Amino acid sequence: MSVNGVAVPDSRNAKMAKMESCNDQNGVIQPLLTDLYQITMAYAYWKSEKCDDTAVYDLFFRRNPFQGELTIFAGLEECIKFVKNFHYSDTDITYLKTVLPDTSEPEFFRYLAHLDTKDVQVYAIEEGTVVFPRVPLLRIEGPLPIVQLLETTLLNLVNYASLVATNAARFRMAAGPEKILLEFGLRRAQGPDGGLSASRYCYLGGFDGTSNVLAGKLFGIPVRGTHAHAFVNSFTGHHELKRRTLVRKGSTEEVDFANVCESWQHKVAGVLGVDKGQMNDGEYAAFMSYAMAFPDGFLSLVDTYDVIRSGVPNFCAVGLGLVELGYMPVGIRLDSGDLAYQSVVVRDMFKKIATTFNEPRFATLLIVASNDINEETIHSLNQQKVILGTQPPQGHSIDSFGIGTHLVTCQKQPALGCVFKLVEVNKLPRIKLSEDVDKVTIPGKKQAYRLYGHDGNALVDLLQMPDEAPPEVGCRVLCRHPFQESKRAYVRPANVMPLYHCFWKDGKVCRPLPCLRDIRQHTEESLKHVRTDHKRALNPTPYKVSVSDKLYNFIHDLWLENAPIGELS
Amino acid sequence: MSVNGVAVPDSRNAKMAKMESCNDQNGVIQPLLTDLYQITMAYAYWKSEKCDDTAVYDLFFRRNPFQGELTIFAGLEECIKFVKNFHYSDTDITYLKTVLPDTSEPEFFRYLAHLDTKDVQVYAIEEGTVVFPRVPLLRIEGPLPIVQLLETTLLNLVNYASLVATNAARFRMAAGPEKILLEFGLRRAQGPDGGLSASRYCYLGGFDGTSNVLAGKLFGIPVRGTHAHAFVNSFTGHHELKRRTLVRKGSTEEVDFANVCESWQHKVAGVLGVDKGQMNDGEYAAFMSYAMAFPDGFLSLVDTYDVIRSGVPNFCAVGLGLVELGYMPVGIRLDSGDLAYQSVVVRDMFKKIATTFNEPRFATLLIVASNDINEETIHSLNQQKVILGTQPPQGHSIDSFGIGTHLVTCQKQPALGCVFKLVEVNKLPRIKLSEDVDKVTIPGKKQAYRLYGHDGNALVDLLQMPDEAPPEVGCRVLCRHPFQESKRAYVRPANVMPLYHCFWKDGKVCRPLPCLRDIRQHTEESLKHVRTDHKRALNPTPYKVSVSDKLYNFIHDLWLENAPIGELS
Repeated sequence: MSVNGVAVPDSRNAKMAKMESCNDQNGVIQPLLTDLYQITMAYAYWKSEKCDDTAVYDLFFRRNPFQGELTIFAGLEECIKFVKNFHYSDTDITYLKTVLPDTSEPEFFRYLAHLDTKDVQVYAIEEGTVVFPRVPLLRIEGPLPIVQLLETTLLNLVNYASLVATNAARFRMAAGPEKILLEFGLRRAQGPDGGLSASRYCYLGGFDGTSNVLAGKLFGIPVRGTHAHAFVNSFTGHHELKRRTLVRKGSTEEVDFANVCESWQHKVAGVLGVDKGQMNDGEYAAFMSYAMAFPDGFLSLVDTYDVIRSGVPNFCAVGLGLVELGYMPVGIRLDSGDLAYQSVVVRDMFKKIATTFNEPRFATLLIVASNDINEETIHSLNQQKVILGTQPPQGHSIDSFGIGTHLVTCQKQPALGCVFKLVEVNKLPRIKLSEDVDKVTIPGKKQAYRLYGHDGNALVDLLQMPDEAPPEVGCRVLCRHPFQESKRAYVRPANVMPLYHCFWKDGKVCRPLPCLRDIRQHTEESLKHVRTDHKRALNPTPYKVSVSDKLYNFIHDLWLENAPIGELS
Repeated sequence: MSVNGVAVPDSRNAKMAKMESCNDQNGVIQPLLTDLYQITMAYAYWKSEKCDDTAVYDLFFRRNPFQGELTIFAGLEECIKFVKNFHYSDTDITYLKTVLPDTSEPEFFRYLAHLDTKDVQVYAIEEGTVVFPRVPLLRIEGPLPIVQLLETTLLNLVNYASLVATNAARFRMAAGPEKILLEFGLRRAQGPDGGLSASRYCYLGGFDGTSNVLAGKLFGIPVRGTHAHAFVNSFTGHHELKRRTLVRKGSTEEVDFANVCESWQHKVAGVLGVDKGQMNDGEYAAFMSYAMAFPDGFLSLVDTYDVIRSGVPNFCAVGLGLVELGYMPVGIRLDSGDLAYQSVVVRDMFKKIATTFNEPRFATLLIVASNDINEETIHSLNQQKVILGTQPPQGHSIDSFGIGTHLVTCQKQPALGCVFKLVEVNKLPRIKLSEDVDKVTIPGKKQAYRLYGHDGNALVDLLQMPDEAPPEVGCRVLCRHPFQESKRAYVRPANVMPLYHCFWKDGKVCRPLPCLRDIRQHTEESLKHVRTDHKRALNPTPYKVSVSDKLYNFIHDLWLENAPIGELS
């Protein structure tokens, strides 16, 4: 099994994932990573003697991204670590003194300097769970100014993480469970840490690995990669090779590898019907050089000159040279042109080599594609029918996708609109009204349950008031649309899962934070219990989010109380 | 001048900008923030004994973003600091040993552990300069494997920085030089550092400030912000106010501010013709609380309930209360609805108050708008004509824009496609051919000049071979399209600016890195010398990038030498 070539995670990587991603990472997020208005509001609360008011805030989103009907919740571990480490340093305070007006009272800065989150409680849905609009992902309770001060950072940590994890999950659903998906987005991400977040949360959403080495080091994500066009371009011909030998596998015998390959070059050109003069000699030298460096991980980028007339024949010649010395090449990567067509032609060439030289493993060599791929590309590749000569039509033959820009920048929708809304102050509910009913908040502290049917699929998410008994398995429960009176139905759940767990209380993390690999597993599991019509790419069915009858009435009574009485004119 | 309200940068901030952004920031970028294939290529180069080969790489982009015809180059300071600090730590090496195959030679890791960049040279265009496709932004020279190892990180540092700086510059061009532009994107950026990069480079591109406090602390960017809807929502009525007094400005006299405001509330309702019963009492209390905290920085978010019937009247009542005590309010923020229409109505209300109460400063209070604004919104606002009653049509009355999501995520094009291409090895040029002429690289080491006309505007960027004499002022120089034979013209420049400077050589930063504020200034200056037709939003004219006659012939000779000879069939 190759680690540097494109291959499935090996046990070494698995062990490392376990070891590293459960530990604290390098980054403690600073509390000044926030909007200034959180600080000015804190000062106004402090001046108004509202520091001991207790508040409840919900963090939620209103619409699923990418015209889909589901979202993957991610970023919780970072949120909890942020809450845990929340503390203004001396330099923070010094800086804030320069930002607030000179008239600000010094006592406020002493208050800030001693702030901590021991009176804050964080309830949240398990990271990696499939989630839906309006169901709060986190509920934060605590002193009004302190919880308010957490807002921006929590939004920052959840928004992009959930967006890119959802994007990754969509790529996974498009590609199917068998394909190897690799994240190659570092160079196009929003700066260094944008790239790290992308790698981390794409893995969570279902990718198999990343090219980002630091993400491998910090989070234990399997890292993958071979070589670039520049590597091929740096060689002009095989005369340049200073080292020509390779040890036969399992022995100490040094063999003249360049000689071995040369004899294969002639044979390959004959079998594939290509002109040896068109097989680029610099490319050939580059491939030999790479193969001698990674005889068990030989995967070549074959489109520097001409995939069919140069890249693949050169790969086959060098690959067969490796086989002669007891190694096995891994495959090729395509980075331009018509990927479906090329993959089928290349597969055909591999099969010819396999048959002619009685090397059946050549027929199933890995074909990786990596040119500007988005979700639609994968859907469209899935539907293609390539016809070669008189052979029956065939879909694409790509085994693995390397995806960069469109994955990490979330091209289709570059932001998830999570919001952080005040729903209770001093145990009194708060409702935010709006002419746009989508923007009306669901007031008060809530419990949330996911109700499952007999087939194991999720039927509905149900929000209740905290003093209501949880829905019971086998018992009828009335589920109502939060805002439309006529939309309601009885549900008899075969299974009920409470969605919230307390993660932070009394200054302690009170529920273990699973490691990244376990969260990834949970995402996969959570997606399995969502009906396929919610998951399909085209016109997916919306999943239902309901409220109990009691909560429905509570919302609407409060709405009436708070709505201004207009005049018809 | 208010620091916490929305206002122009004050001298204190200016001083800080000078002080902090010239210094090293907290983040040393780790060399493992790279794609794995850089490491595997390094190993293959090392195995092939190519470590002493010298290479030249160009970092450039092929197309301007956002359907525009210019780009702002940003990220250079971070690139130079990365090159300066480039060194693998012991834990990096330990990790890399787990990633490369077990057969990798230990000597290679010793080579990696001792790598540094003292033999690397970095030439670059000044950060903040307006730049164009194909003209390399950086030229990196040095040992082949070392320069290759820098690729991904340099691309990461330049790509997003330049993209978002360009986006910011486009917002600035759309809004005009007078408007105050504020970046509010932290909560929607790609994680913590994505948010920091966004704030830094939006400021560079022409924004006036950010809401991101950490960006203020680290880079000296002016920070701005007041309060959120949650602040308004946290108050239910003026009975809640525990503190009601405010000191009269310049004295020690404590005045019952709530009383003062109450009398103004009646008068304002009368003048503006609104029903005092519809002025939300929680909002009124929130405004008073905020005003007592920031009597010199009172800027209210007025759309929590009803802008016209509640928010603005409440603001005016509290604002006039402040005036009575010797203070001056700053203005209001609109965050929903029809921004142009509302701004005009609000301006009209402010004028009525100004006239009625003989308080002319009220007429010019700041109106900030901040709801999901993109570049098109600003263009469309500029074109609106709002008609109020019998008054002549008026455009919008917005003084300042707070812009988040669309600015930092670069919604219109979420990635700039910078590439890093090998153009020379051991003093021999390398050309990358492609059927797509846009993807053909310009081989060899190059010099670049910007040629200006008599009106001070840039005429053309000219690439030359390094041994050619620079173009001379007043002398005719032939400028050729790099790939189209017929496109050529003589230019007689009134001014010539060499674009490249050496920033890193002999292990030293050899040109001072200007502070962020100076780079921002340079961007503004550089944009002034670009013709308006290149800058306009709709169908801008492409700016010309040319090559000298000698370079043209060099490219095409090499092209012929390297092109495979096909057969017509």
